Amino acid sequence: MQSVISILADVRAGKRTAREAVEASLDAIAAREPDVLAFERTADRATLLHQAETATGPLAGIAIGVKDIFDTFDMETRYGTPIYAGNQPKSDAAIVAMARRAGGAIVGKTVTTEFAYFTPGKTRNPHDPAHTPGGSSSGSAAAVAAGMIPAAIGTQTGGSIIRPASFCGVAGYKPSFRLLPATGMKTFSWSLDTVGLFAASVADVAAFATALTGRPLEAEPVEPASLRIGIYRSAIWNDASQDMRAAVQTIAALAADAGATVMDVTEPDLLAAAREAHATIQNYEAGLALAGDLALNESRMSAKLRETLLEGTAIAPSEYDAARRIARHARHAATELFSDVDILIKPSAPGAAPKGLETTGVPTFNKLWSLAGNPCVNVPGIADAHGLPLGVQVVARFGQDQRMLSAAAWLQSLLRAG
Amino acid sequence: MQSVISILADVRAGKRTAREAVEASLDAIAAREPDVLAFERTADRATLLHQAETATGPLAGIAIGVKDIFDTFDMETRYGTPIYAGNQPKSDAAIVAMARRAGGAIVGKTVTTEFAYFTPGKTRNPHDPAHTPGGSSSGSAAAVAAGMIPAAIGTQTGGSIIRPASFCGVAGYKPSFRLLPATGMKTFSWSLDTVGLFAASVADVAAFATALTGRPLEAEPVEPASLRIGIYRSAIWNDASQDMRAAVQTIAALAADAGATVMDVTEPDLLAAAREAHATIQNYEAGLALAGDLALNESRMSAKLRETLLEGTAIAPSEYDAARRIARHARHAATELFSDVDILIKPSAPGAAPKGLETTGVPTFNKLWSLAGNPCVNVPGIADAHGLPLGVQVVARFGQDQRMLSAAAWLQSLLRAG
Repeated sequence: MQSVISILADVRAGKRTAREAVEASLDAIAAREPDVLAFERTADRATLLHQAETATGPLAGIAIGVKDIFDTFDMETRYGTPIYAGNQPKSDAAIVAMARRAGGAIVGKTVTTEFAYFTPGKTRNPHDPAHTPGGSSSGSAAAVAAGMIPAAIGTQTGGSIIRPASFCGVAGYKPSFRLLPATGMKTFSWSLDTVGLFAASVADVAAFATALTGRPLEAEPVEPASLRIGIYRSAIWNDASQDMRAAVQTIAALAADAGATVMDVTEPDLLAAAREAHATIQNYEAGLALAGDLALNESRMSAKLRETLLEGTAIAPSEYDAARRIARHARHAATELFSDVDILIKPSAPGAAPKGLETTGVPTFNKLWSLAGNPCVNVPGIADAHGLPLGVQVVARFGQDQRMLSAAAWLQSLLRAG
Repeated sequence: MQSVISILADVRAGKRTAREAVEASLDAIAAREPDVLAFERTADRATLLHQAETATGPLAGIAIGVKDIFDTFDMETRYGTPIYAGNQPKSDAAIVAMARRAGGAIVGKTVTTEFAYFTPGKTRNPHDPAHTPGGSSSGSAAAVAAGMIPAAIGTQTGGSIIRPASFCGVAGYKPSFRLLPATGMKTFSWSLDTVGLFAASVADVAAFATALTGRPLEAEPVEPASLRIGIYRSAIWNDASQDMRAAVQTIAALAADAGATVMDVTEPDLLAAAREAHATIQNYEAGLALAGDLALNESRMSAKLRETLLEGTAIAPSEYDAARRIARHARHAATELFSDVDILIKPSAPGAAPKGLETTGVPTFNKLWSLAGNPCVNVPGIADAHGLPLGVQVVARFGQDQRMLSAAAWLQSLLRAG
């Protein structure tokens, strides 16, 4: 895979130019894209190389894929649906403009499921083309995993960053809610839609986040003796496969051996119950956010999406308000979880990427944190017997993104050493 | 002015058809628009009348103007800037789709200032064409005030609903934050942008909100003896003109005479200080939300907007985070205000609409509530010596929208009787 940290170091040291770095990514896309199908479209090669020549800023040399749910002034934006064929935005989404401002090269639009919900696009898992890459940020995760690009932008409403990152074996970072702006993305659920990032390793995704935002998000050295890790024994712990649970235990054992404090944390009933509120909030808001699309283009939607929107439309405002109250309480309870531990670890998904391309898997292990707004990151580095990645999810207190990324990068380094 | 309540009652009673009601509004637009210039464009008359013939739902017969900051699939959407000339969205903003679903007739796009910030459009104050209608929801307020339409949709980030409602002498309702969806509007500041409504009277705007959302928001009878009203003595009380302060005192005196409890409420220091945090949050977020527009079209922006965006771009994330913390504390403090009173009353603006069309006035008396998210409504019904409206702003606890609308409608009825 291409490493954000290595490329930035090379460019800074003059070992290669930003243009050469971007060109290497474009060559990698040309080589791997026919097998992986991670991109909906790519930007003009000559224009990209010309821009890279004069690029300045902390992301100069970094080729970035953008989920096709974000507006781009220079590329059609289809939101994964034929309804938006030919849709050419007049401007860039905020996160895209930020990436360009920082000198990054927006090389293409990556495949998303339909409206970033469940119906898959064409992308295949780079580790085995018969398996799903996960979704909804399918192309962003797969393009990084396939070594085509060092960095990608995605979104998560349920589990759309952490799950594909886990299935594809890359670092996927869902920041604290609204750390990254959602302006200029197609809204599905305004209380849940969260912009996030992909890169090869946790340290890489932290470096990408830092350069993109100007916030202190680099992975810093961790003092193992002062790190308290909770294994999150959620109500759905046993819904994870045996090898996925073993992956979490493996990381926990390595951390304990290295001197960290590891303990079990039982899920409070309130948080187990809050998982149910996610669907009410998501579907009610989707029913409004996509009300115009439903009215105009119902027949061009997948059955699953249509059903969800009609369900959402039928939810009474009072029921939605009740779910929002549960979410508010859950946010407080999720904060309380971190009074005795610095981070929680848990499965990123129920198991490795399922076989088949007709589904992208389920967000069961992710949606609670989308609801509560806590930062999460997928730690790659473990594989099952078939060589498919098993990701471990690290979760931290709201706003503790840097601490989380630092701890997760340290955990990944233990896997490498182990 | 056209009354939402009267039209709905007439249609329900069979006194006139929905088509006739919409046609009356279209005729009124034809008659008054040349003087007021409230609309950027209107929808096709024949199509509107045809739709109205078969319209069902609680808004059938109601002609609605939509601020040209919201996407409409059937009308160009320019956001008050030549940058977006020719911009034809493929779908409707959520609030527009809701209005259509409820049977409302979306008759046209109303004038907004540039990107709903300060640079004025062409609209004039219906009470005196030499005076500003206020902004940024200039056309929405003016079109209702001029009797062209019974209902309009607008937005407020600083004071863009309450101020033009006050200047034009109509009811403007800024709901609790996110009670109405902002999806499909051009974002300026995602933490502050609030969708709101205009109608002739407070009772009318409450009826409009009820029919639009399906939420219980009707103005209900008030028991004066159980109503506790606070006159909000903010740090900027004396920035209001003498006749504006007198307008607030007039309403307070009428309410006291009618049996309500009236007391003074002093502004906590925390809330006075929070007023300053508004600009930091707004400008930082606008610097990101419009980053693509700035990069591509800086030269086509007004100097004031450009300056604000560049200022916003220069704000450090840590400074923004500090302002957000102040805002969070302000929300708690704003809730505390209502432990002893049900509603607060205060000026809607520093005074009547200023003369001249080169500015739309200032949001000084509004931005605290945009920051804190409390519901507000402008109560019309008082005029200065020159016949220009002076609005009184009613504010309630977050989520207490119906209580606020009920109390405000009662206050307006006292003005009518008095």
